[in-house]
Amino acid sequence: MNAREPIHLTVNQNILEMEYAVRGPIPRRAAELRQQGRETILCNIGNPQALGQKPITYYRQVLSLVEDPAKIDRERALEKRWKTDGGPPAGLGDIERVSEHVLKVSEQFLSNMKSGLGAYSESNGPLFIREAIARFIDKRDGVDTTHGSPSNPDGIFVTNGASEGAKYVIDLLIADPKDGIMIPIPQYPLYSATIKKSGGTQVNYYPDEDSGWVLNRSILEEALSAARRDGIRVKGLVVIHPGNPTGAILGAETIREIIDFARDNEIVLIADEVYQENTYGATFTSFAKVLGREEVPLFSLHSISKGFYGECGHRGGYLEVRNPPKAAGTPLSFTEILLKQASVCLCPNTAGQLLMYLVVNPPEEGSEPYRLFAQEKQTILTDLWDKATLIREGFKHMDQVECFGRTGAMYLFPRLNKLPVGTTDFDYCMNLLETTGLCTVNGSGFGQKEGTHHLRIAFLPPKKLIERVLPRWIEFHNAYVNR
Amino acid sequence: MNAREPIHLTVNQNILEMEYAVRGPIPRRAAELRQQGRETILCNIGNPQALGQKPITYYRQVLSLVEDPAKIDRERALEKRWKTDGGPPAGLGDIERVSEHVLKVSEQFLSNMKSGLGAYSESNGPLFIREAIARFIDKRDGVDTTHGSPSNPDGIFVTNGASEGAKYVIDLLIADPKDGIMIPIPQYPLYSATIKKSGGTQVNYYPDEDSGWVLNRSILEEALSAARRDGIRVKGLVVIHPGNPTGAILGAETIREIIDFARDNEIVLIADEVYQENTYGATFTSFAKVLGREEVPLFSLHSISKGFYGECGHRGGYLEVRNPPKAAGTPLSFTEILLKQASVCLCPNTAGQLLMYLVVNPPEEGSEPYRLFAQEKQTILTDLWDKATLIREGFKHMDQVECFGRTGAMYLFPRLNKLPVGTTDFDYCMNLLETTGLCTVNGSGFGQKEGTHHLRIAFLPPKKLIERVLPRWIEFHNAYVNR
Repeated sequence: MNAREPIHLTVNQNILEMEYAVRGPIPRRAAELRQQGRETILCNIGNPQALGQKPITYYRQVLSLVEDPAKIDRERALEKRWKTDGGPPAGLGDIERVSEHVLKVSEQFLSNMKSGLGAYSESNGPLFIREAIARFIDKRDGVDTTHGSPSNPDGIFVTNGASEGAKYVIDLLIADPKDGIMIPIPQYPLYSATIKKSGGTQVNYYPDEDSGWVLNRSILEEALSAARRDGIRVKGLVVIHPGNPTGAILGAETIREIIDFARDNEIVLIADEVYQENTYGATFTSFAKVLGREEVPLFSLHSISKGFYGECGHRGGYLEVRNPPKAAGTPLSFTEILLKQASVCLCPNTAGQLLMYLVVNPPEEGSEPYRLFAQEKQTILTDLWDKATLIREGFKHMDQVECFGRTGAMYLFPRLNKLPVGTTDFDYCMNLLETTGLCTVNGSGFGQKEGTHHLRIAFLPPKKLIERVLPRWIEFHNAYVNR
Repeated sequence: MNAREPIHLTVNQNILEMEYAVRGPIPRRAAELRQQGRETILCNIGNPQALGQKPITYYRQVLSLVEDPAKIDRERALEKRWKTDGGPPAGLGDIERVSEHVLKVSEQFLSNMKSGLGAYSESNGPLFIREAIARFIDKRDGVDTTHGSPSNPDGIFVTNGASEGAKYVIDLLIADPKDGIMIPIPQYPLYSATIKKSGGTQVNYYPDEDSGWVLNRSILEEALSAARRDGIRVKGLVVIHPGNPTGAILGAETIREIIDFARDNEIVLIADEVYQENTYGATFTSFAKVLGREEVPLFSLHSISKGFYGECGHRGGYLEVRNPPKAAGTPLSFTEILLKQASVCLCPNTAGQLLMYLVVNPPEEGSEPYRLFAQEKQTILTDLWDKATLIREGFKHMDQVECFGRTGAMYLFPRLNKLPVGTTDFDYCMNLLETTGLCTVNGSGFGQKEGTHHLRIAFLPPKKLIERVLPRWIEFHNAYVNR
């Protein structure tokens, strides 16, 4: 066998140029260190269960039964013995029952999804799941016969995480390299990567950091004017709300301004609302709620990965379409084209679909699993807030670090006002990793105003771990920036 | 509120032009009929569990426990009582135990995937799953220290179904509209859709139907020459093996010819081997096995959706890369670029990953779950063969229907030699659906030689249902073609 020179091929330039820092060089270096036996703390990504957050018991109990329906019969048989004996049968002692409620919900799910989780579903997800999502949205937004506009299950797509929905929309909107999508700076790199991959143009807008990442119409107008001067046709505006990585939570008035801007400029809105539960006491107002009956195109995203659910690995989410634009040059509606895109993947994974269904259908107050559910939810959210607060306190002991705005989402995005000459936030994060094992991501991975430096940290590790690593970070910081 | 004219936007032309017949107008009409209360039999797609095939017990038992690890402790406690009592505790009667083997495999999986299924995994899947896949491939292909070339876990990507892996490769190979990918006609429309979406050129080659869909080098050379005359730079060659929709199973000599063709023309091979278990007594020879140590780029695909597993809804699969080509204009290797693509989706869904792991790690002969596992596998595969045979018999009673080649995969692709003047196989399939409720897909949805007509039927419905609908199909057929 003679060794051959491997063949050389040109490859898709957009994929080559695409960047995705949260899985980039710093996390890759962390993986190497881990393989060498070093302790690393993975704060590069919002992956709560990887850092010890427990799944919500109720979700997993239902999922477990639906995956193996024979277990439901077995539980029913066990139940019967329990009941007959007025307690666990002799010898079973303290072994716990599976709650009647959990059994019923599992049976109900299977009666709606008759082939269970092993069959392809409809490409947009089965109607009963889309209906449950629509009810959830209406309830969340206080929609009734006199207020707001009800969500339409036909405009809902269950997806493999929110990322998939965002990609469908952006892929479809980009018809030409001069087509632009506005994204906030800093942003979650899914957006920059997807725009790049689709061959379109990224149009940056800059929420005002020093006033707590405030966003207003004039910021958007400025970005739009600049893009138009460059011959870019802006078609979509992405708002991440609450902000990733900034945590910023928008009020109804700001959302109103954004909607007006979109309407007046014939731009569709893409509202990434995956952190809607991560507001820590602040009110979350959805874009759909402020939109009401106004006919501005809105694509909203939600996910099972964030909130208090944290089911990242199961890849579940949804995309809700309101007032779809008319697609030029085709008899198909925008929603029909989206459905065609979804068809090529056949269907979103069914375990993720079930979890999405459970997220929009939490156990009702007073039901058997409610108490534990509510307690787990509360613990997780309180914990997240406490951990964010702990880290924010740490910043006060770091030379010239400022962190603006209220805590939201799962991240802090502090500004590093002082760095050694000639170094960047990438160097800082890499050195922080090497010195302390703490894996964060450089601000440039999310985009930032020219000349500023940041990092993003997910406030997810257990408190004790944060308490242990924070002093080392402070020490590293003050030595590094003053070296 | 004044009703506004919806905004008009141009959209991505490639997405508009993309077609996906297996979820196209005929299945959509079937959905309408079902909503009207009509019985429909969904043979448009290989979706076994939707047609009553039961999941493999072993897979679901493990999946159920891994989804809810608290159940493992509970089972361990129950086990203990069982053992102490030398049988089920008083009152538990015939309630079945979960086997020790299933408990151990679940525990082992969780000891490898410490955060369970709720965390994002590595974007290509965790190393232990990729290693298990590599061992499976080597065992299947008889690789040892003297024969063949071992599979490299670093070249393996766990994916959301095989479709995702195919898309990564094709998306990356298309750098220019003149870049071409060769696909068989007929083909599975994932390929035509993905090439269209990527903006490349589809290059057709035509296995010889009348001799049983035979493929040879001269068929490939002919297609390549024609493409080159049109200025197309052919970069990839897709082979679906066993064939979808043809069922054709290739021998080692044919695969050798295909590899030689690819090597001599510097074309990468994409081997879709998702039906490798669906050969019904014929030997499956993988492209990797015939390739051996020869350094021709090969991308192989496998899936949890087909075979006897049929876990379509869970969306699991893998892509194995051998001898990756060198990507021009970048220091990154081809595999590193694929990993970047996978990163943007974060990770394949974890339930699908677990099932892929179980598919490549079946219970060993002699182990506790083996007997039931082997029996379920045998029953499913025998049943599929019987059902295919039943339908093939039916063709003999249909005027001028011919079905070539041996049965493979999950489909029959009969040729309709007689149709009423001016009608197409699309009309035939639509009328067949309206008359009998049987949902098939027109041959033109897969591609076929000019002037021929076919349909694809998945041989998946229960035998009784086939026996019931087949006479109605025969009756419809003979009336329709002779009308």
